[in-house]
Amino acid sequence: MGAHADDSSLPPVVFETHPDRYRHWRLEFPQDHGAVARLVLDVRESEGLRPGYPLKLNSYDLGVDIELADALLRLRFEHPAVKALVFTSGKDRIFCSGANIYMLGSSSHGFKVNFCKFTNETRLYLEEMSAETGVQSLAAMAGTSSGGGYELAIACDEIVLVDDGASAVSLPEAPLLGVLPGTGGLTRLVDKRKIRRDLADAFSTVAEGVRGKRAVEWGLVDEAPGKKDFEAAVKRRLDAMVGRSKRRAMKAVKLEALGPERRYVSLEVDTPARTATLTVRAPAGTEPQSAEELAKAGCNAWAIRAFRELDDALLDLRFNRPGVSVVVLKTAGDLEKVLAVDRMLAKYRDDGLVREVTLLMKRVLKRLDNTAKSLFALVEPGSSFAGSLLEIALAADRVYMLDHPDEKNEVALSPLNAGALPMSNGLTRLQSRFLREPERVARVLEQAGALDTKAALEAGLVTFAPDDIDWEDEIRIAVEERASLSPDAMTGMEASLRYGGPETMETKIFGRLSAWQNWIFQRPNAVGPRGALTLYGKPERPEFDFNRT
Amino acid sequence: MGAHADDSSLPPVVFETHPDRYRHWRLEFPQDHGAVARLVLDVRESEGLRPGYPLKLNSYDLGVDIELADALLRLRFEHPAVKALVFTSGKDRIFCSGANIYMLGSSSHGFKVNFCKFTNETRLYLEEMSAETGVQSLAAMAGTSSGGGYELAIACDEIVLVDDGASAVSLPEAPLLGVLPGTGGLTRLVDKRKIRRDLADAFSTVAEGVRGKRAVEWGLVDEAPGKKDFEAAVKRRLDAMVGRSKRRAMKAVKLEALGPERRYVSLEVDTPARTATLTVRAPAGTEPQSAEELAKAGCNAWAIRAFRELDDALLDLRFNRPGVSVVVLKTAGDLEKVLAVDRMLAKYRDDGLVREVTLLMKRVLKRLDNTAKSLFALVEPGSSFAGSLLEIALAADRVYMLDHPDEKNEVALSPLNAGALPMSNGLTRLQSRFLREPERVARVLEQAGALDTKAALEAGLVTFAPDDIDWEDEIRIAVEERASLSPDAMTGMEASLRYGGPETMETKIFGRLSAWQNWIFQRPNAVGPRGALTLYGKPERPEFDFNRT
Repeated sequence: MGAHADDSSLPPVVFETHPDRYRHWRLEFPQDHGAVARLVLDVRESEGLRPGYPLKLNSYDLGVDIELADALLRLRFEHPAVKALVFTSGKDRIFCSGANIYMLGSSSHGFKVNFCKFTNETRLYLEEMSAETGVQSLAAMAGTSSGGGYELAIACDEIVLVDDGASAVSLPEAPLLGVLPGTGGLTRLVDKRKIRRDLADAFSTVAEGVRGKRAVEWGLVDEAPGKKDFEAAVKRRLDAMVGRSKRRAMKAVKLEALGPERRYVSLEVDTPARTATLTVRAPAGTEPQSAEELAKAGCNAWAIRAFRELDDALLDLRFNRPGVSVVVLKTAGDLEKVLAVDRMLAKYRDDGLVREVTLLMKRVLKRLDNTAKSLFALVEPGSSFAGSLLEIALAADRVYMLDHPDEKNEVALSPLNAGALPMSNGLTRLQSRFLREPERVARVLEQAGALDTKAALEAGLVTFAPDDIDWEDEIRIAVEERASLSPDAMTGMEASLRYGGPETMETKIFGRLSAWQNWIFQRPNAVGPRGALTLYGKPERPEFDFNRT
Repeated sequence: MGAHADDSSLPPVVFETHPDRYRHWRLEFPQDHGAVARLVLDVRESEGLRPGYPLKLNSYDLGVDIELADALLRLRFEHPAVKALVFTSGKDRIFCSGANIYMLGSSSHGFKVNFCKFTNETRLYLEEMSAETGVQSLAAMAGTSSGGGYELAIACDEIVLVDDGASAVSLPEAPLLGVLPGTGGLTRLVDKRKIRRDLADAFSTVAEGVRGKRAVEWGLVDEAPGKKDFEAAVKRRLDAMVGRSKRRAMKAVKLEALGPERRYVSLEVDTPARTATLTVRAPAGTEPQSAEELAKAGCNAWAIRAFRELDDALLDLRFNRPGVSVVVLKTAGDLEKVLAVDRMLAKYRDDGLVREVTLLMKRVLKRLDNTAKSLFALVEPGSSFAGSLLEIALAADRVYMLDHPDEKNEVALSPLNAGALPMSNGLTRLQSRFLREPERVARVLEQAGALDTKAALEAGLVTFAPDDIDWEDEIRIAVEERASLSPDAMTGMEASLRYGGPETMETKIFGRLSAWQNWIFQRPNAVGPRGALTLYGKPERPEFDFNRT
């Protein structure tokens, strides 16, 4: 393991940024391209997130990817006129050389895994922007693209690679580093671009990659024009993307910095207990009653602000709180106010901004599903597990609901539980919950009013419903027990139980490819003292234990 | 790691057995049940496959599972009158306590992983026997069933658990051992039995398990009668299974021992090169021309014998040849003779025995897909990659075909390439190959005659086609290069690239659950000196690194 194998001494990772402060990307809106945004990758070598690895050759670390995620979010909210996105490089002859290897080699196992998860999510957001918002993307590669650089390209809708006799695409992770392309690359090869499996095999083991015409023949890129035709090819494809974009009109919403204050989400960590309590509060005042009012309220609307805060808390949990095993999920406030927001979002669902807000909620809830912490939801009097916030309970591994003889304790459904907030497997959380009795989904959704503990238990929304005498002890013991179990077994178990039913490219990336990568990231052949990742760039050759598993 | 962390000093595992020699199972045909077979698990404590762990409480090791796999195969071929199968225990109060923990704790990582893979395949064969042959199975549990014991039960169609106040079902791996239930358990919970995910979560973390009525309510078992009603419930369910069985009539075919001689399959290992050459030969003489002749030829028919030999070679490769990284796949003999067999099997496909033979081929080819070795197929003059044997090439990670100016070198399609031999993902190997251009599948299948190198390359059946001048060098270099790469990276890469397209419960077990389990099997929290698996049964308590990944 490398120098940072224990990351606990490092300052916490901060996820908020702004184009004005980007160090590695430029978000541009070139005049000559009309409705096109351009993201120029021009990495500053010396400004890695952590010390010790220069970001040579447009390689990236988490800091670079945080900026990319920020840019994609801003394109959705702040730049509604954009109808296509092009990725280019600010460097000569190199588009992007992928994740920085020295960063990987010097990171702890947990950091590597969470880094890969975040970069995967960001690339899936790029694809979701194409599928849901109608902003397609193009990788315009006037130079070589390797590893994560090519993985970024195949997350785009189209790829143009210059045919200059030198520029190649490659996935050199396996041959050079003894690990897998960690950002969905192998899955996208065979599942998205549907590269023939034997060609994908050859491609993924040739460190120098594939160029020009062969890259087109194998399906690795869509076009490989010569140098002089490159710009025209890019322009032609972008014009076509703009032409077919179905992006809806909407008023731009500026995403102001969340700042240090949290209005709706709080995270309290109990370090010795290895637990955290994550509380999401319902709106306090009056929320927008129409799409127009929502545009006016902008990023101060609860639906935007609360879910941005929740997203930030989840990333904080993943990267800055590795010691937390169990997250207790709570809500607070007026359940009716959540339902009112949901009803407005459902009513104006064809509005461009409303759609973006709902998609934001969807992505954040997926991030919750995909967070490797045990999640226990507690439904207590004063909570507001309704509609979009009920999804938080449905994302939990277990739901405890207090069965109180006197105090009102309820959960409620909203139209948003019916399909607007699907999981990565394409099902709603209700559908995923009731795989055994699919007819329950409609029955639960038909519930007009709120459900008390008995009704929620009968409906199958709740795992256990202790009474007020047992409640405190039962919760305490359940949380303590969970926090005492092997965190690795819990991670693998939760990844298996949370995603019953169908699989999608997305679940294949997180469930199959990432699990294999996690395995390999642990193996001495990669990270041992003589492992390929450890020794990359050093004069020594790696030494493998050649036994196949 | 335990005493056997290096298994290389142990005698090779032998996979051939016979009911007369079973040490742990009894295959019985009870008079009072008519068309029912009974498999009684009655493990002999002192007769583990390897020394050092008594098989207490009906726990199992690979030797126990080899007998189970043998029994299931014999039910298909030797006992066509059987229409339902019941599993019982020969021990009091215990059905099966799962995989032996001391065996797991003392095995190498590679052995553990391959043991789990084999047990998974065997349980999938049980399910295939239900789906394809019409022999359903019942777990009749008059005692407690934990871990792999319960995983065997959920591989059955139905489960009856006695409600005696003591007998429980449980998956205690995560709480007790810090690992996952390794034989498909978590996947079958949510995907097959469709247990609600929060109940599955609670169940999988409660070491003592769930009993009686609650086990029925949660969907973990189908019925929990009291002691005095137990036998009647079992009988009623078996009668119903027999009643609805659609098993076709066929003549019994006795599976004689393969013995030491191999007629159709040879395996040559080059230990220093870390390669093996696996050659499958076409029939030599005249093969059965009809279903009737096939029944007469019995286990000497090429279609049965060759694929049994291939299966044995694959298991030998997995368990006894961990040092082999690359398997060169070859065929030899008369291509026309393979096609003749395939045509006969296709013509008489409704015959019970023909169907069993084709299903055997299918299972063996899946075992090939699922073998963690790099597979390179070499198509040379004199080879016989036709129809069912062409599937071997289509299972390979790459196919090299010699482009010879003078010598005839051909591959050929048969009706069996069109659907009788699907992969675990439910697609044929041709469909998996041509995900990008699905219309190619029909086009290739329409090819009447054999395809020479040029035609095969154009059809997309072949990866590379070096000419006779380059052939030897190119193959040598390709194999050497492959054998030099990290075996872990290759395992993860191949698992990702071989299964493009849809996922099934089967691919979820091998791709998602197994990958997570492999990861956990490596973690110090399980197998380190203070890990839970290492310390199981010892006075010391495990010590975990509680950081979540």
